[in-house]
Amino acid sequence: MKRRSFLTGAGTAAVAATTLPAPAIASGKRTLKMVTTWPENFPGMGTSAARLAQRITDMTDGALTVKVYAADELVPALEAFDAVSGGAADIYHGAEYYWQGKSKAFNFFTAVPFGMTANEINAWIYHGGGQELWDELSAQFNVKAFAACNSGLQLSGWYRKEINSPEDLKGLKIRMPGLGGEVMRKLGAAAVTMAGSSIFPSLQSGAIDATEWVGPWNDMAFGFYQVADYYYWPGWHEPGSCMSAGFNLTVWNSLTHSQKEVVKAACAAENDYSLAEYNHFNGQALKTLVEKHGVKLRRFSPEILTALKKASAEVLQETADADPYARKVYDSFSKSLALSKEWTRIGDQAFVQAREDA
Amino acid sequence: MKRRSFLTGAGTAAVAATTLPAPAIASGKRTLKMVTTWPENFPGMGTSAARLAQRITDMTDGALTVKVYAADELVPALEAFDAVSGGAADIYHGAEYYWQGKSKAFNFFTAVPFGMTANEINAWIYHGGGQELWDELSAQFNVKAFAACNSGLQLSGWYRKEINSPEDLKGLKIRMPGLGGEVMRKLGAAAVTMAGSSIFPSLQSGAIDATEWVGPWNDMAFGFYQVADYYYWPGWHEPGSCMSAGFNLTVWNSLTHSQKEVVKAACAAENDYSLAEYNHFNGQALKTLVEKHGVKLRRFSPEILTALKKASAEVLQETADADPYARKVYDSFSKSLALSKEWTRIGDQAFVQAREDA
Repeated sequence: MKRRSFLTGAGTAAVAATTLPAPAIASGKRTLKMVTTWPENFPGMGTSAARLAQRITDMTDGALTVKVYAADELVPALEAFDAVSGGAADIYHGAEYYWQGKSKAFNFFTAVPFGMTANEINAWIYHGGGQELWDELSAQFNVKAFAACNSGLQLSGWYRKEINSPEDLKGLKIRMPGLGGEVMRKLGAAAVTMAGSSIFPSLQSGAIDATEWVGPWNDMAFGFYQVADYYYWPGWHEPGSCMSAGFNLTVWNSLTHSQKEVVKAACAAENDYSLAEYNHFNGQALKTLVEKHGVKLRRFSPEILTALKKASAEVLQETADADPYARKVYDSFSKSLALSKEWTRIGDQAFVQAREDA
Repeated sequence: MKRRSFLTGAGTAAVAATTLPAPAIASGKRTLKMVTTWPENFPGMGTSAARLAQRITDMTDGALTVKVYAADELVPALEAFDAVSGGAADIYHGAEYYWQGKSKAFNFFTAVPFGMTANEINAWIYHGGGQELWDELSAQFNVKAFAACNSGLQLSGWYRKEINSPEDLKGLKIRMPGLGGEVMRKLGAAAVTMAGSSIFPSLQSGAIDATEWVGPWNDMAFGFYQVADYYYWPGWHEPGSCMSAGFNLTVWNSLTHSQKEVVKAACAAENDYSLAEYNHFNGQALKTLVEKHGVKLRRFSPEILTALKKASAEVLQETADADPYARKVYDSFSKSLALSKEWTRIGDQAFVQAREDA
């Protein structure tokens, strides 16, 4: 466990924000730069960012014209937050856990191992106090962020060999970034991070033994089924990943009431539409993977899931311990999840079980 | 099974639409009348309708000012569709299954027994061809409708006595409208329909033995726990009820591109926000019902669920047989559900199971 200074860089960002020019305003039309952490038109997340920009532009009749920049086009993907914080860009579209170097608290606004499903994180953010804490955290960086896209549940990923016990994870070279990777390391795996474009050749050459990516839809497009036989479920490391749109706070505060309402509705609409898109195309792709490509679906054994869950609880405690804000967010998140869990259990979960079994 | 004439009243509505005045337009501001099927400020559905109206008004800076009328204020609740179809109102907010007298196909756009969860119906409507079929159906009545609110899963309801086998359903007087009621009747129950305000006294007096309503949040407010001891799960008759906003098609076509985009985003935003609201408050209310009010949660036995599922399949076949359009919508719905089921099973379902068990 390593304690780190809390909210690194907040001061710098705030200073920088005051020294940079306001967004271009010409003839009543204002162009806002949206930097993203996705390759151009990356299906799901990238296309949702593009639709968000188009929605805002269309709804305001161009009074707010949002121009989208793919990852690395204007700034490197993982510098999107700093660019918006400092005013070099107006909006980012990404995932909050990419900013965990600033505060571990950011993880909770995307997804954490054995955490919330998409429906549960929406309940927390909109109605359980999540947005208020997110605003408080982001304001320290001169940012105001919203839930704007959700991938739904992400599966456990692609394995070149079967995993039959926790022992089989020891020494496994797996591409799994973030908190999921930390959990894997606790179980003895060698979790590594690499850019999306490097995964296929690494898996093909055997440089890595396994990788997680997103779910059937995105995974099929990357062709992992060609170089790894086993697709493992259930997902556990990202049960419902929330992607976000973050505004430079000075820019946000300069918007009119109607423009703010447009942005809020556009983000919530995409949050809804993108999750439905993932669910629809995941269903289609799953069928194709199994029936056309002969992918072998494998379910982790209860013993492996127990080990993953135990290690996940440790990682979440360490995450909460990392800084005072992470603890505060963890507490709110946990309180909301405790309520949601019971409703999910006797609600959706029990219905789906009955639909299968009865 | 009873075949009925297809699409009753479509002709009348189309004629009426051309003879009624366009919505009031004054100084560039246009007032649109939204009639709803909900009591004023009914938590969840009624408040979502009010927020939808406010969102559209705010986002257009009042260019479209939406005025909301509670059920029976301008027209009786169940005449909302006809009012909009004929042009006496501009927008309705209700549930499509209320219009099943026009075509049984409308049921599929709200919820059907053992059908889709909220996430699954969104996948179908947005991405699986549902919206296109809905547009085709509604256009015959001069209406254009959108998904605009979702209650999530509805529970099986409140029972004055325990139900231990399908035999116990025989002769049971239960308030359960629509297709759920038809399923209950197949199992020998006396399913009745009554207005919300009559349910509590009827349950208290023993005039009925049981009632379904919505879920913990709405049910707690109605106080059913005071007059019935048993709260049954899982839900099966409405696994994720989609509420809708329907526009008079002539009014819809008269909107500018930006206004149409505002309406679409406002509806999708409410679809997202309302589901999260139901999930959050259902979680809170469930805890209160059990811990404070001592409600006894009871799970239907596998034998009962099997009987309900079998009868539901029969009712859905009869629904599909009712008119050619119902068959067409049923086929599309079923195809989408087959894909979603498998993704839900190895996705959310398996994760939630692992989170509980591991």
